[in-house]
Amino acid sequence: MKIICNRSKLLERINIVLKAVSSKSTMPILSCLILEVNNDIKLITTDMELGIETVVEGEIIEPGRIALDAKFFSEIIRKLPDDVVTIETDYDYNATIYCGKSKFSIVGKAGDDFPSLPNISRNTSITLSQFALKEIIRQTVFSIAYDENNKIMTGELFEVENDVLKAVSLDGHRISIRKIMLNNSYPSIKVIVPGKTLIEVSKILSGNVDKFVNIYFTDKHMLFEFDNTIVTSRLIEGEYFKIAQMLSNDYETKLSVNKQELLSCIERASLLIRESDKNPLIINVNGDNMELKVSSKAGNMNEDVNVVKEGTDLVIGFNPKFLMDALRVIDDEFVDIYLINSKAPCFIKDKDENYIYLVLPVNIIVNN
Amino acid sequence: MKIICNRSKLLERINIVLKAVSSKSTMPILSCLILEVNNDIKLITTDMELGIETVVEGEIIEPGRIALDAKFFSEIIRKLPDDVVTIETDYDYNATIYCGKSKFSIVGKAGDDFPSLPNISRNTSITLSQFALKEIIRQTVFSIAYDENNKIMTGELFEVENDVLKAVSLDGHRISIRKIMLNNSYPSIKVIVPGKTLIEVSKILSGNVDKFVNIYFTDKHMLFEFDNTIVTSRLIEGEYFKIAQMLSNDYETKLSVNKQELLSCIERASLLIRESDKNPLIINVNGDNMELKVSSKAGNMNEDVNVVKEGTDLVIGFNPKFLMDALRVIDDEFVDIYLINSKAPCFIKDKDENYIYLVLPVNIIVNN
Repeated sequence: MKIICNRSKLLERINIVLKAVSSKSTMPILSCLILEVNNDIKLITTDMELGIETVVEGEIIEPGRIALDAKFFSEIIRKLPDDVVTIETDYDYNATIYCGKSKFSIVGKAGDDFPSLPNISRNTSITLSQFALKEIIRQTVFSIAYDENNKIMTGELFEVENDVLKAVSLDGHRISIRKIMLNNSYPSIKVIVPGKTLIEVSKILSGNVDKFVNIYFTDKHMLFEFDNTIVTSRLIEGEYFKIAQMLSNDYETKLSVNKQELLSCIERASLLIRESDKNPLIINVNGDNMELKVSSKAGNMNEDVNVVKEGTDLVIGFNPKFLMDALRVIDDEFVDIYLINSKAPCFIKDKDENYIYLVLPVNIIVNN
Repeated sequence: MKIICNRSKLLERINIVLKAVSSKSTMPILSCLILEVNNDIKLITTDMELGIETVVEGEIIEPGRIALDAKFFSEIIRKLPDDVVTIETDYDYNATIYCGKSKFSIVGKAGDDFPSLPNISRNTSITLSQFALKEIIRQTVFSIAYDENNKIMTGELFEVENDVLKAVSLDGHRISIRKIMLNNSYPSIKVIVPGKTLIEVSKILSGNVDKFVNIYFTDKHMLFEFDNTIVTSRLIEGEYFKIAQMLSNDYETKLSVNKQELLSCIERASLLIRESDKNPLIINVNGDNMELKVSSKAGNMNEDVNVVKEGTDLVIGFNPKFLMDALRVIDDEFVDIYLINSKAPCFIKDKDENYIYLVLPVNIIVNN
């Protein structure tokens, strides 16, 4: 095998496939990338859940295939001068890398034991902008659970209904729902995507509004196709939680607040709370006033937040992390918070329900 | 006690004193800062080796003194809105912090067990720019040893002779020497400054060319005075190594190379060397050619570097880290390297010997 390519472009492509290289696999071959040269120059990696295949621009002198330690190869390419890189392999799977006056020889492998990526039929698909996909992931993926005992919670529901894509994640304390409009109507799709897949795909996506992603679905897999790159992923099997019954449009109190002001105030308040103590953040809505309070071993804090209130007064307690996580991903300047009573879930949502963040309150002892 | 000050200015000052707060001291009081208000508002910290005292601009309503957990206090001030901060304490050492609509109450201590900073007489002193001090530290401190069995190696020699300040550090494999001209002549001074002191002082210094530092010396201590801040430090007792006899102006080979080109080449080569393997970087000077080579279990690399050579050919091996450390702190575009033979130390130095970096070679088996 012999190829010639530009060092920066090669490095950019290596950085993409590195996302599916597992550092702690028991199969040594999974720490390798496959450099496969036929009609094009391809880099391939997989951690058995996630697979990535991307095409490198370059000149093919001789086809071939080699497995190289992915991290080591990436470090070498990173340190090379920004010039033309020639990579040549011999029959013993030694790879020689020439760049400028520098010459590296490293030992590769045949890679016959490298698992092949699933062959996914491209029938059912949707298309959306890289920006939209990156946003919908950012705005929901923070509330997946990392509890491997409940596999379904470690994934996200991706549901397509006509021209709407809905993503849902939940972890037992909160639910995040985000809807976006697609440019076309599609047949119904309902799959559970591993959270890890979404996190890695999101890192690779440029986030460009004018660039598109095709997503293909089968029973057991999905495939993202964009920018000369293919990411395949297993789906999580099973039925997702029925969330419709957890949602409600009733409320007794509606609060409209400046998002950044509320977020900064909760961030300050949470300084007093140690993870182990679990002291709640108390929100006391009284007349036209909204007071946030925390009291812990470390000290206590209270602060008034400007609010436009509709409805009744109440006192309610929260784990401040859950409120902060939701507020951080909302781009609106003002947010509406809907409350029923101190035991019922709180909803942060916009008028059109493009986003809905449900957060369960925590029990507090109210002494007035 | 009651004071009023600007939140940003207070935070800037807290960040300075945090440098002497030890996270792993067995004396709980050392995790505190002292807020001492008399004629001015002072913050004081110490880890018993290093002490920092800095003045905060602000209005004094009532004098007093309190010890507050330094990290916790700094986190609170960091998260406050950028506004006026009022700090008030009561007789039980509770501190209340008001800022905007936010109110924090935290528990402090009397701080009677807080060790007082050494009282250092201000007789012997030198003055230099913050820039010069920061530079001389950066260009030498990397080669102190961290071996507590040889206390003297963990420090740096600071030697003043007439109008020259010389800093020296060494770790058994290399010596770094940097000289700077002072604006005045001073009586001779020779002290060993703890490396940690220099690292922390360097972080606090603004590096401004127009701002000055006064350094005072006594037998056991030194004191840095700048920007309303005082840093005191113990000195290391003992006699520093006699380095004059390790230096030499003889050479058989002189190489002039582009610093960045050489550094990049060594950085690439060192990718092949695992810390545990200790394979050397081999420099082969042959005719007008200088070749760098590495051969290890991971692979091998060779590269030619442009060089202007004077003298004889030779092959010599190095730990590449030591060459990289020295080259990284040299600001010159071209460097001169002086060599005698494959067993003798290598010198990287400028013509006026404002800097001298001695690096010992490693044994190599030359098979030609």
